[in-house]
Amino acid sequence: MVDIIFLGTGSSIPTLRRNHPAILLKYKAEAMLFDCGEGTQKQFRKAGISPMSVKRIFITHWHGDHILGLPGLLQTLVLNGYDKEMEIYGPKGTKQFMQKILEMFVHVGDIKVRVHEVTSGKVFESEDFEIFAEEMMHNARCLAYSFVEKDKIRIDKDKLKKLKIPSSPVLQKLKQGKDIIVNGKKIKANEMTYINKGKKVSIVLDTQINNSIEKIAKNADLLICESTYLDEEETAKQYKHMTAKQAAQAAKKSNAKKLILMHLSQKYEKKENDFLKEARKVFKNTEIAEDLMKVSV
Amino acid sequence: MVDIIFLGTGSSIPTLRRNHPAILLKYKAEAMLFDCGEGTQKQFRKAGISPMSVKRIFITHWHGDHILGLPGLLQTLVLNGYDKEMEIYGPKGTKQFMQKILEMFVHVGDIKVRVHEVTSGKVFESEDFEIFAEEMMHNARCLAYSFVEKDKIRIDKDKLKKLKIPSSPVLQKLKQGKDIIVNGKKIKANEMTYINKGKKVSIVLDTQINNSIEKIAKNADLLICESTYLDEEETAKQYKHMTAKQAAQAAKKSNAKKLILMHLSQKYEKKENDFLKEARKVFKNTEIAEDLMKVSV
Repeated sequence: MVDIIFLGTGSSIPTLRRNHPAILLKYKAEAMLFDCGEGTQKQFRKAGISPMSVKRIFITHWHGDHILGLPGLLQTLVLNGYDKEMEIYGPKGTKQFMQKILEMFVHVGDIKVRVHEVTSGKVFESEDFEIFAEEMMHNARCLAYSFVEKDKIRIDKDKLKKLKIPSSPVLQKLKQGKDIIVNGKKIKANEMTYINKGKKVSIVLDTQINNSIEKIAKNADLLICESTYLDEEETAKQYKHMTAKQAAQAAKKSNAKKLILMHLSQKYEKKENDFLKEARKVFKNTEIAEDLMKVSV
Repeated sequence: MVDIIFLGTGSSIPTLRRNHPAILLKYKAEAMLFDCGEGTQKQFRKAGISPMSVKRIFITHWHGDHILGLPGLLQTLVLNGYDKEMEIYGPKGTKQFMQKILEMFVHVGDIKVRVHEVTSGKVFESEDFEIFAEEMMHNARCLAYSFVEKDKIRIDKDKLKKLKIPSSPVLQKLKQGKDIIVNGKKIKANEMTYINKGKKVSIVLDTQINNSIEKIAKNADLLICESTYLDEEETAKQYKHMTAKQAAQAAKKSNAKKLILMHLSQKYEKKENDFLKEARKVFKNTEIAEDLMKVSV
């Protein structure tokens, strides 16, 4: 199961309800942060989650509202004795920006940081999951990311029971696609196993509508997408952002299962429900993120 | 009247109740900010105050908890069309730090900033008030500040009434110390006027106890003082901070009228009342600042 905690869901200027963007993705022992707007360390506290578990931070782009919480978060980690190496992923320029951020550290000690400047493609792989990136279209180099859990081969325990096959360590070979013999009886791997499809979560922030969204979010179980504007397509195009309808169109074209909108401009504080109406005309399974909201996929 | 709004009253790590340090001082048309910890722009919003009125920012020192809200605040001012020149005062090194902060501005436009690196003495003067600074003893160059309203000569209206002297523009000359003649009667300036003593507010953050506190806070109507530790004097000395008792001693030696403690370490979240007890043993008129608390002097 993948847990998403929306630490901040706002846009360039924070409101009382929406802090600057930051999304925490938890999967098994891993905690990954996507963007880190100003005040993210306090949002961690409000959510009752320690930031000490974060091992990777993925930056979509280096506009202030998406990264100004980074120096404070890292300084707090140092003060709390963080001794891992923090892996930071972002577009070209990330090394230089990180250098500037680390130069602002005064008298708090150092933090080990490894910076990865990445472009489109696979940017990280573990035993259980992969992270992919795609370049977006914004007025700064900007990446969208996908967390993709690997598919798992499972043994069909109901079938085993039906056929009265006793539990045995040799059964594990079925997972490797190998046929086995139990009590003189041949058991075929392809008949006794099934594939447990891995979950996919895509995060698309700060971009105008473009075809790479479909590429990164293809068949996602959850697409988290920016929707800075309600329906002003010309304005969205001018400032290289998206409308609620465009986010819904992207979700539909990507064949995503669920869409969650965030990064709503502060100017819509009192008419956020209109975003839902707009988006649901095109893509029914749409929600709007709230700060500290938790979603499991 | 001087209004103080405590935007943030915490220490290096924010708690749910205490954001990083930031103090807003309002006097007539002036709004001045002292320090600007991460999340200060959101604290402005919580307080229902626009940061657009801020014309001067005084930085005590360049540790992260006191300044990491500065880039976000300035960016938000730009986005809101701030067209004044922001005057920023701080210790030696401030120009270099401001340079780094402004280098992080991406695609939000520019803000006009004039940086003043200051030491002990008068650092600003207007028609109505002065700002003084003194160097403190911390593990970074650190300044304490005082806002000092100028004394005003007032005409004693009760006396005028008693002597049946009619209202007249010529009376204004009394304020300049000039004697006047009304209806053939000599009226002496020194008999008909009194001095309205200006208010003084001193802000002492991040320092170990030292004699310059007395110098900056002499006869202050309000001394806002750090009290990072409760009673661990050795620890306070080691990390160059103060205890509650030391803050009270400083208030007493300075002959301050009122003491407000802030910058309490997050580790005392549940025993803040002990700070009051400790301090009041030495200086009775002590309070503890709360985020968004407003005090008028």
